[in-house]
Amino acid sequence: MSIAELERIRARLAARPRPGDLAARRERLDGLGADYVLPPDVTVERVTARGVPAEWTGTAAADPARALLFLHGGGYMAGSLASHRHVMARAGREAGLRTLALAYRLAPEHPFPAALEDALSGYRFLLERGIAPERIALAGESAGGGLALATLLSLREAGLPPPRCLWLSSPWVDLTLAGGTLASKAAVDPLISRAYLAELAAAYLAGADPRSPLVSPIQGDLAGLPPMLIQVGSAEVLLDDALRLASVAGAADVPVTLQVWPHMIHAWHLFHPELEEGRAALRAAGSFIRSHLDGAGDP
Amino acid sequence: MSIAELERIRARLAARPRPGDLAARRERLDGLGADYVLPPDVTVERVTARGVPAEWTGTAAADPARALLFLHGGGYMAGSLASHRHVMARAGREAGLRTLALAYRLAPEHPFPAALEDALSGYRFLLERGIAPERIALAGESAGGGLALATLLSLREAGLPPPRCLWLSSPWVDLTLAGGTLASKAAVDPLISRAYLAELAAAYLAGADPRSPLVSPIQGDLAGLPPMLIQVGSAEVLLDDALRLASVAGAADVPVTLQVWPHMIHAWHLFHPELEEGRAALRAAGSFIRSHLDGAGDP
Repeated sequence: MSIAELERIRARLAARPRPGDLAARRERLDGLGADYVLPPDVTVERVTARGVPAEWTGTAAADPARALLFLHGGGYMAGSLASHRHVMARAGREAGLRTLALAYRLAPEHPFPAALEDALSGYRFLLERGIAPERIALAGESAGGGLALATLLSLREAGLPPPRCLWLSSPWVDLTLAGGTLASKAAVDPLISRAYLAELAAAYLAGADPRSPLVSPIQGDLAGLPPMLIQVGSAEVLLDDALRLASVAGAADVPVTLQVWPHMIHAWHLFHPELEEGRAALRAAGSFIRSHLDGAGDP
Repeated sequence: MSIAELERIRARLAARPRPGDLAARRERLDGLGADYVLPPDVTVERVTARGVPAEWTGTAAADPARALLFLHGGGYMAGSLASHRHVMARAGREAGLRTLALAYRLAPEHPFPAALEDALSGYRFLLERGIAPERIALAGESAGGGLALATLLSLREAGLPPPRCLWLSSPWVDLTLAGGTLASKAAVDPLISRAYLAELAAAYLAGADPRSPLVSPIQGDLAGLPPMLIQVGSAEVLLDDALRLASVAGAADVPVTLQVWPHMIHAWHLFHPELEEGRAALRAAGSFIRSHLDGAGDP
């Protein structure tokens, strides 16, 4: 484990705490991504996916018949194409495909179900472009993970074919905030707290019921969902969200792979250019996606 | 998913229910293994590991510097070298090493801690043979999974070096029988029930406290344990044992990979010669062991 790498990141986060002002918060997360330079062979193409600003990232080696649809994190209130571009580029390289990142609408300007509508638009856009559902992987980080699951529940409801597999990193899947690690991991999580999550949930819900499966997917019936990889760090207040998701999905006969990465912090993939475990987690996710899109994959 | 294969196995189990008589039960489980023929390139060598009957299984391709120490299932009351020989042969082939299976003492003739003492003897035997701990993988199925964890806790207590990694299939890790799936999965589990587990626990404990971490390792402090792969089927009353183990170990900063295999029944690896998911699970376990013994492995 790269303790020194992790400590450096922790020190930087501590020196630059999350501001209270919303615009400053969004700038901070975007700046985190902008600090990292993309490899020269990565191309970036802006598109509009049924009205939603989006971005293809890929290299010449990517299989054009496949796609990874990615929903960034940021608590439904922050995050953008800029904040996660380097993660997308790396994930796509590891999976051997292009990624379509979505700039879905954010709260509080656009509360639930705006983000969900945009995620569904992004998926429909891929289908309309002729990409077969069994060649699509859906992914989400943190709030984007909950959004990805809500997207799957909505697709099932609409009778649309699901993507081949699902990759979730540090997913936030319970806006009722019932996870035990919200308290037990509070002292070791440098990014997320119960108070912060409560603020995010209030802004996104804007009065909607936090128990709705479309905002808290672990409250829903997950039967029939495609194989999922769940990656979470052990130094996260959201650890229990991942563990409970694995329980609920597994009990519903969904193929589940859960990886708990010791000492990793929330959304550590963001720091992969300077954190070996970030690169290893993206490698594992790429391998998972590749094998499932190849028609294999365990379980 | 090979529904037809699974249904055939379920039908056979239903036609041959577990007898009440202990000797007949043991014969039934041994017969299950004896029904399967070993591949011709597998060699079997009986040894005595510090007094414990044991057996090396391997092929010419196996790395002689590495070993998989395997603790069979059977509820601490049944199971043997014969019942699991075909599983050992396949797991060793997938992992590229030899397996040492232990015929640890069984209850009720030999209650706790006899099995644990024998497991420790098996591990010490490997060390004495010059196999480095970082080249040993420890494995256990069902009761053998709980025994493997108890072995690790005992090794830590004794100040002995742990093996490099741990592979558990359908582990039974809570003799207090607190898992919610003991009830919720009762209708779909053809092999295990709460009443059967209670009978096994009583025989093994013979008055010992079921909350002791050496019989119910999820009650213990798992910090410092090596990376573990947990495999469980979704049609098991013991599903929650696996899920709760992943939670407790993950929260204790242990590297955890959990795989929930949809529709699989307890210890489905036993049926791998006629069940694709059994072979796939053994392949996944072999890959996990190989990568960790190579010094890699995620997480």
